[in-house]
Amino acid sequence: MFRFTSWGESHGPSIGCVIDGCPPGLELDEEFIQKFLDQRRPGTSKFVTQRQEADQVKILSGVFEGRTTGTPISLLIENTDQRSRDYGDIKDVYRPGHADFTYDAKYGFRDYRGGGRSSARETAMRVAAGAVARKVLGDYILIRGALTQMGSKMIDGDNWDWDEVSNNPFFCPDKNMANEWAEYLDGIRKEGNSVGAIVEVQAEGVPPGWGAPVYAKLDTEISAALMSINAAKGVEIGSGFATASFSGTDNADEIRIRDGKPVFLTNNAGGILGGISNGDTIVARMAIKPTSSILTPRRTITRDGKETEVLTKGRHDPCVGIRAVPVAEAMLACVLADQKLRHIGQMGGQVG
Amino acid sequence: MFRFTSWGESHGPSIGCVIDGCPPGLELDEEFIQKFLDQRRPGTSKFVTQRQEADQVKILSGVFEGRTTGTPISLLIENTDQRSRDYGDIKDVYRPGHADFTYDAKYGFRDYRGGGRSSARETAMRVAAGAVARKVLGDYILIRGALTQMGSKMIDGDNWDWDEVSNNPFFCPDKNMANEWAEYLDGIRKEGNSVGAIVEVQAEGVPPGWGAPVYAKLDTEISAALMSINAAKGVEIGSGFATASFSGTDNADEIRIRDGKPVFLTNNAGGILGGISNGDTIVARMAIKPTSSILTPRRTITRDGKETEVLTKGRHDPCVGIRAVPVAEAMLACVLADQKLRHIGQMGGQVG
Amino acid sequence: MFRFTSWGESHGPSIGCVIDGCPPGLELDEEFIQKFLDQRRPGTSKFVTQRQEADQVKILSGVFEGRTTGTPISLLIENTDQRSRDYGDIKDVYRPGHADFTYDAKYGFRDYRGGGRSSARETAMRVAAGAVARKVLGDYILIRGALTQMGSKMIDGDNWDWDEVSNNPFFCPDKNMANEWAEYLDGIRKEGNSVGAIVEVQAEGVPPGWGAPVYAKLDTEISAALMSINAAKGVEIGSGFATASFSGTDNADEIRIRDGKPVFLTNNAGGILGGISNGDTIVARMAIKPTSSILTPRRTITRDGKETEVLTKGRHDPCVGIRAVPVAEAMLACVLADQKLRHIGQMGGQVG
Amino acid sequence: MFRFTSWGESHGPSIGCVIDGCPPGLELDEEFIQKFLDQRRPGTSKFVTQRQEADQVKILSGVFEGRTTGTPISLLIENTDQRSRDYGDIKDVYRPGHADFTYDAKYGFRDYRGGGRSSARETAMRVAAGAVARKVLGDYILIRGALTQMGSKMIDGDNWDWDEVSNNPFFCPDKNMANEWAEYLDGIRKEGNSVGAIVEVQAEGVPPGWGAPVYAKLDTEISAALMSINAAKGVEIGSGFATASFSGTDNADEIRIRDGKPVFLTNNAGGILGGISNGDTIVARMAIKPTSSILTPRRTITRDGKETEVLTKGRHDPCVGIRAVPVAEAMLACVLADQKLRHIGQMGGQVG
Repeated sequence: MFRFTSWGESHGPSIGCVIDGCPPGLELDEEFIQKFLDQRRPGTSKFVTQRQEADQVKILSGVFEGRTTGTPISLLIENTDQRSRDYGDIKDVYRPGHADFTYDAKYGFRDYRGGGRSSARETAMRVAAGAVARKVLGDYILIRGALTQMGSKMIDGDNWDWDEVSNNPFFCPDKNMANEWAEYLDGIRKEGNSVGAIVEVQAEGVPPGWGAPVYAKLDTEISAALMSINAAKGVEIGSGFATASFSGTDNADEIRIRDGKPVFLTNNAGGILGGISNGDTIVARMAIKPTSSILTPRRTITRDGKETEVLTKGRHDPCVGIRAVPVAEAMLACVLADQKLRHIGQMGGQVG
Repeated sequence: MFRFTSWGESHGPSIGCVIDGCPPGLELDEEFIQKFLDQRRPGTSKFVTQRQEADQVKILSGVFEGRTTGTPISLLIENTDQRSRDYGDIKDVYRPGHADFTYDAKYGFRDYRGGGRSSARETAMRVAAGAVARKVLGDYILIRGALTQMGSKMIDGDNWDWDEVSNNPFFCPDKNMANEWAEYLDGIRKEGNSVGAIVEVQAEGVPPGWGAPVYAKLDTEISAALMSINAAKGVEIGSGFATASFSGTDNADEIRIRDGKPVFLTNNAGGILGGISNGDTIVARMAIKPTSSILTPRRTITRDGKETEVLTKGRHDPCVGIRAVPVAEAMLACVLADQKLRHIGQMGGQVG
Repeated sequence: MFRFTSWGESHGPSIGCVIDGCPPGLELDEEFIQKFLDQRRPGTSKFVTQRQEADQVKILSGVFEGRTTGTPISLLIENTDQRSRDYGDIKDVYRPGHADFTYDAKYGFRDYRGGGRSSARETAMRVAAGAVARKVLGDYILIRGALTQMGSKMIDGDNWDWDEVSNNPFFCPDKNMANEWAEYLDGIRKEGNSVGAIVEVQAEGVPPGWGAPVYAKLDTEISAALMSINAAKGVEIGSGFATASFSGTDNADEIRIRDGKPVFLTNNAGGILGGISNGDTIVARMAIKPTSSILTPRRTITRDGKETEVLTKGRHDPCVGIRAVPVAEAMLACVLADQKLRHIGQMGGQVG
Repeated sequence: MFRFTSWGESHGPSIGCVIDGCPPGLELDEEFIQKFLDQRRPGTSKFVTQRQEADQVKILSGVFEGRTTGTPISLLIENTDQRSRDYGDIKDVYRPGHADFTYDAKYGFRDYRGGGRSSARETAMRVAAGAVARKVLGDYILIRGALTQMGSKMIDGDNWDWDEVSNNPFFCPDKNMANEWAEYLDGIRKEGNSVGAIVEVQAEGVPPGWGAPVYAKLDTEISAALMSINAAKGVEIGSGFATASFSGTDNADEIRIRDGKPVFLTNNAGGILGGISNGDTIVARMAIKPTSSILTPRRTITRDGKETEVLTKGRHDPCVGIRAVPVAEAMLACVLADQKLRHIGQMGGQVG
């Protein structure tokens, strides 16, 4: 029901997306979307790529006098800082860990400038679509994300403070770890290397009942949405991979009544049972691999099959996981907006 | 292009599925499908549910004189051993970890007999569809799966021997661990408990080029397919969550030329880069939570909001992860069959 | 949101369909569906095929204790009167007007028994799905159909009486014409020929607002649904092809207020403006070509390219348009059920 | 496989579309697309709307160094001549025959400027997408269209000359009728009225085998595509509605062998049997209702339910059917491109 289609390459004139199925009458302006885009924007600290992009979003359709009309919403961001000359020397070389080899294998050639379609720039449009999705969900659903691990350094869950997330350039909820990461990532960056990360996203306020038993399961759709983000290599819901070592008695979240309402005593389920929300906080995590664009030479081959080495100049994120946080929030918002509308549709008007 | 729709409940007269988009002219009979169903069948050892189901598949359409016709293939399995009386006492109680609560929350009521639609019986049809998908893929693609962890006990990767997988009731590729698991799971079963597991599936022989950059990414679709299996709580591709602690120099799979062909020196990517296959073995893993139906009492509530305790009688798997192995293989086969046909379609006839 | 997938061939063991997206809690049993199937059933008069099929529908899933559960509904009808021997002699010959040639051209071979997948038997499942769709729509929407033309003989619109439709074997709303058709069609049948027809379907009670501006337009979906019926060669909405000769002043339905509500003074629009229902009766018509299976020899070729003649024995409808009436009603019901759920979904719960 | 999503309103800053699934490596530039857009462009003669739009298309993504990359193609046209002031006086009045009433009924409000999303301006993007679809089809498939009826004046089929179509402002294939129409339509225009029309489109060179038996039938998809064009009220394939009065012996196209190939002696089927192309010319027609925007006052109501009259100033087409010709060609091209890729996909690489 709520869906978006993105388009655009890293070094084309612009990138954009079209959102279909948005309900009418929602207040929406560029400023609201921009707020979320600014969280993902490059060039904001020394820990992210130095590419300078204003990432100014324009609404081209679907909004009239400040409200959504129910028809397709077209959003566009112009690319302003494309330095294609940076990429000339990787035109005929496959960067390990990148999609260069596979694009050529599939299509026979590729737009090599900045990764073309495989560039993380595409994720800007996901953030924009996510902002619209938040409007669909309304204020009673709170979607938040944080970075919980950077390379080998994991936060201490006991220190989790959502207010800290906006106080550091890492979306880190653990104040102590944020300081540690600053020094750690600076070292990584200076040695021309990169690191992976784990992102956690949560949605509070989702009523029980969204999702479906087999097709369009809520956890399936969240997994797919997160896995579709560039550099994602794993996703988990609730206690995720840890449940493999749990026993049945440990794992099943027991239920009590509190203030007349069902309350789960634990949340190993991550808010989802049988593909359907149970009313508890929805919790998902994803693993983001380290940036493949590094200044350290790696062994590879050329387009015509000769062995060589490559190091990737240009302006890159030493930890792409950081900027993946607002993207992951946006994807969770989009899945929930869609599931909300589907649920209402099938249930004949009952929201939750 | 290749897709299937399943239907049926644990205690209805039958379960089934319809496969659309299958190419014509493929040899297909019930015996071929049955071979895969028998791997997932209940009642085959003391380590799986004692429900006795022959799981005899019938082909009702789409096959003529032993070959697929290109039209919808309808498959059906009759349910023969439904003991609905086992479930009468959980009719009004929500079993923790089960979908009882969420189905009621969504639909207002539920088919409580054996979990109804949320039963793992539905996965029989996935295995059947997967058998057809293997026909679409042909013999040059080899899809295999194994159990790599049961509860806290993980196999030793150095002992991996594919031939062992069929030598024990656990799909375990590590002979030593298979023996250890037998004793371990027997203990779990006797104490009325259950454990989680990790399943790994691989596909060898997939040519480079299948998949797509943003929509219908190969890793996204594999993740969604695995996550849609009952009890799955996490999925990962290649080195998955481990890449979070990798550095860029560790992670990027370097490339050399061997016998005139590109060869990746490592496979952290799990055979997929930028959403597209790179020709290396495709590797995915999923975490399966412990069976929620256990004989140990857990705290819960009734349909009308009273606190109570529940223990689940009936015939259950102490480790549902075991029977998830053929299901995961089948889901991987279905995704690859679909991606193969899409690739051929977009490429105008080029298979790989 | 509401969709069905049918499967099955004319001479396989059975035919069936799976309905996804049906809301939960609707009362549904086999008897209700059977009532509609009996309208389409073969062998009920000398004016339709003499194939004897009980067309007894079975509900295999998705209904529990007499109510839909919200999960897939599987319906099955066994084929009981397949005389495959009737078709042996057309195995290697292409019957003009049939899909024999095109199936072979596409798939390389075909299930030649009774037309296989191209048989009108498939439409039984559409009628079954339509019965479920009527439950989704509820009693306040009335869907009816009639035959308005048979061969060259058109009804007189001034004689239209809905009560007559069930009084003759033609679904004819014009009593006089029904008598005329009886004699006319008997002649056609006896000379081993067949005739085309026009079917009209109407839906009363659809509130204004269902549909969408460009994608999922209500008229587009109705047209596609009707055109997908076997032997359909044309569809029109409201005044349809006649509007080509209208002037703008004739065509635009003027609006007045009656009893405080907007009323259209004419209904050239057929209840749809800009892809969205306007609250007036929805009116669609379709042209059904004459049955291609006739006893008169026609020139054709064999599978191996030799010129020959063919006449089609077997049991056929002299006017397939007759039995297309309940099928067309069913398709209209399915489109409206889907649009209702979509509308509710996008509108956040507002039915009309 | 090949699909496009359009966006944009008559009086927004721009309109556009995104094309997904286009094969890589096709030569494509703005000039090629522009050629088709210029056929549909307003302001080119006194017989079409006087709105002046350059309709200059820009390719924003999916093309690199003159060839399609296989990733989404984004096309954009800026709106330059929006005179929104023309529409202020219809802001609160429902124009009969327009979507004003239904948009308000559905969404609660509407972008009233120039019809907003319901404007025929959206069809410019269909023409642009159709140009890309032609590239997918290649040169061996020829898609052409013509106007065969304007108001009550029908062409003489015996005079059909494809070369005449570009010699007059009506896409009329009958030289004599073109002259007659010029005078006729001038009269209509001067009296502030409008007329309907019939458009015919043909595709030559489609190999036998494209399409499918029940879902994605070729005739169903063509019908849906044509019916989705603004102002379309009917569609037919081959002999269409005329087949209702045919007998079976008249209707079935007999087959002979000519030069070793199957040849149909007639083409009542319009090139499609059982939802699949038969190799003959594909023929479809659609009825376009008269423009609802006319200068003659019509009875209607206001948004707040008061009776009134309205006449529509502004710049309108006296016969929108004219500019529907290139749109219909484009839609046919899009359907065929999609069907070609689907066919290749399912058949494993066989084009026809």
